[in-house]
Amino acid sequence: MKVIGLMSGTSADGIGVALVDIHGKTQISLLAFKTYPFSTELKKMILLASSHEKLAVDEICRLNFLLGEEFSKATLRLCKEAKVSLKDIALIGSHGQTIKHLPPKSTKPIQFGSTLQIGEPSLISERTGITTIADFRPRDMAAGGHGAPLAPYLHYHLFHSLGYGVAVQNIGGISNLTFIPKNGKLNQVIAFDTGPGNMLIDAIVFELTHKKSSYDDEGRWAARGKVNKRLLGRLMQHPFLKRKPPKSTGREEFGIFFAHQLMRENKNMKKEDLIATITAFTAHSIAESYGRFIMPKFSLKEIIVGGGGVKNKTLFSMVQRLLPSIQLKRFEDFSLNSDAIEAMAFALLAHETMKNVPSNIPNVTGARHAVLLGKIIPGNNFKKLLLSFKS
Amino acid sequence: MKVIGLMSGTSADGIGVALVDIHGKTQISLLAFKTYPFSTELKKMILLASSHEKLAVDEICRLNFLLGEEFSKATLRLCKEAKVSLKDIALIGSHGQTIKHLPPKSTKPIQFGSTLQIGEPSLISERTGITTIADFRPRDMAAGGHGAPLAPYLHYHLFHSLGYGVAVQNIGGISNLTFIPKNGKLNQVIAFDTGPGNMLIDAIVFELTHKKSSYDDEGRWAARGKVNKRLLGRLMQHPFLKRKPPKSTGREEFGIFFAHQLMRENKNMKKEDLIATITAFTAHSIAESYGRFIMPKFSLKEIIVGGGGVKNKTLFSMVQRLLPSIQLKRFEDFSLNSDAIEAMAFALLAHETMKNVPSNIPNVTGARHAVLLGKIIPGNNFKKLLLSFKS
Repeated sequence: MKVIGLMSGTSADGIGVALVDIHGKTQISLLAFKTYPFSTELKKMILLASSHEKLAVDEICRLNFLLGEEFSKATLRLCKEAKVSLKDIALIGSHGQTIKHLPPKSTKPIQFGSTLQIGEPSLISERTGITTIADFRPRDMAAGGHGAPLAPYLHYHLFHSLGYGVAVQNIGGISNLTFIPKNGKLNQVIAFDTGPGNMLIDAIVFELTHKKSSYDDEGRWAARGKVNKRLLGRLMQHPFLKRKPPKSTGREEFGIFFAHQLMRENKNMKKEDLIATITAFTAHSIAESYGRFIMPKFSLKEIIVGGGGVKNKTLFSMVQRLLPSIQLKRFEDFSLNSDAIEAMAFALLAHETMKNVPSNIPNVTGARHAVLLGKIIPGNNFKKLLLSFKS
Repeated sequence: MKVIGLMSGTSADGIGVALVDIHGKTQISLLAFKTYPFSTELKKMILLASSHEKLAVDEICRLNFLLGEEFSKATLRLCKEAKVSLKDIALIGSHGQTIKHLPPKSTKPIQFGSTLQIGEPSLISERTGITTIADFRPRDMAAGGHGAPLAPYLHYHLFHSLGYGVAVQNIGGISNLTFIPKNGKLNQVIAFDTGPGNMLIDAIVFELTHKKSSYDDEGRWAARGKVNKRLLGRLMQHPFLKRKPPKSTGREEFGIFFAHQLMRENKNMKKEDLIATITAFTAHSIAESYGRFIMPKFSLKEIIVGGGGVKNKTLFSMVQRLLPSIQLKRFEDFSLNSDAIEAMAFALLAHETMKNVPSNIPNVTGARHAVLLGKIIPGNNFKKLLLSFKS
């Protein structure tokens, strides 16, 4: 069964479209993947809507429909480029664009969580004729969960049959891990944020290059510098690293404010040394997460690294040196495309919901129980789909 | 099959909950109905979110979840009060709360429509365990329609078997009609806004009583006044009345600004005469809609009047006098509850979508074709539901 997954991340760079084949007992393989960038104008609108700025509700209302059209166009383009007929696609899973995510807080007064993903899926269903499942996070939050992370469900299905303890380490803006114990069941999966990913490095490079460069290409800059042990030691005292999982973090803790503070406090340090130190902090915070929370209890043979951070060779080899007993691999070593993973996840989640299989992992999201995720927007193939899934 | 319909109108007074039984070839009967008012605080938040004020997106995000909880609570309360077990309810159809509706405009530059209903349905599905279908308007708009009106689909199923030409006249803030020709098919239904409903009368009473009264109780004030023929004649020149259907109007044309202008221009008129004249304008604009667009082409025997305007006896008898050949009835004459009609409509629309039956009327909404409306949020009974509908 062919399913399409659609994803746009919080950086609002564009829409990732993954065409996958799902067969047998949740075997999933990638047939095609492409990212279609947003126009500068649209990216600006999305980032504004995601900010703390006040906005006319008209703008949110229009942006939801505008993004729905963009998701539809991206889907149609991928199918054309991959030479796949829309008729051969059973289902679309669309994550949409997160413009607000407010996880529940157990502090007093208790704050219930809420989340807002936009990109009107009725338009996707209408333009493609394909039944679309969208908006996966609210249902987990309705069941008391954080509505995130959801990708561990895919990680489990990709790697649990390897027969040994394995982890997926995603290095995006923030880093997070998914650990699958040897012969582990779905509800034994552990997943949490490990700390900063590219976020801190990118923010500091951006400032140090006077906004000319927004990342450390292949980690070359970090490679030229020397790690400042004293600063690294101080950074490793960050309280987030000691908190027990499940836990999650974001821009509030490791974003632009933290980066600016670091730069002010270390303005006499050589630029390459500062970048090397921040890169080391990122690597150490990842490695320590395994050392502290995984390796004392479980056997771990391989870590499969994905996300933009894979391209930072200095960061990658720092992590490898810190975890000498574990083999670091890439998604590409399993014939997968690291960039496609998130979009693939939402294709799989759509498939599961249509099959009446719950796909949040309560252990991971904090939900009280497993639930069917998403909202189904029937396409022209709805009846056919119901019949095929029923059997 | 028992289905619940949930509706909250733009005045944000509260949630109407209708429990209906749908059987045979779309026979629908009302088992229970109740309106649960919003707290003053929540009503204020909704009206703010519906206004032109700028808002933090956090507020919308939270309000969506907060309203989802309110819709859930209202559902649970009705079931308790009606002594119906949740297990006996197959489906919930929730309209949600419209906070923005921007219909498409064919003027240049062409503006695509968009709409925003909130009241997170994942919460309804989670709290009740019942599969919920929500957010009915976007799909019709995706197909090029106005996403409204949707209630004519219910009107048709309630009254098409009467065997003669019949209309439903709803007098809410705005007035609208649904006409079902004798032996007419669904796609022969005509529906459009006829002009002001209670909106103008209410606004003027509110000002004239220095905000002490918000409506003309039973039309008593209007009954004491004399209609000013000159002013009535001038009002009946309003361009909206001449526009050919399908057409829709709203606060922009017949709201507070229009009311204030009328009061300024007629400040020397006796209060009861002004109210009598505005009531006559409302009655004439309704009657003329039939005279101009329905009666020249179709036979029409009865008009079934609903909405808050039914309670204005002066208005009701004015309409009756203007249409002497037609019998005016009330929903109550058919053992129906006028207040429940909108909520019943969304119960029926949910049922149709689950049965794979399109329920927008392209003739009425302007959509390019008929579509399945809404988004399905699977409950605990999802599989059972699929099996029962499949057969």
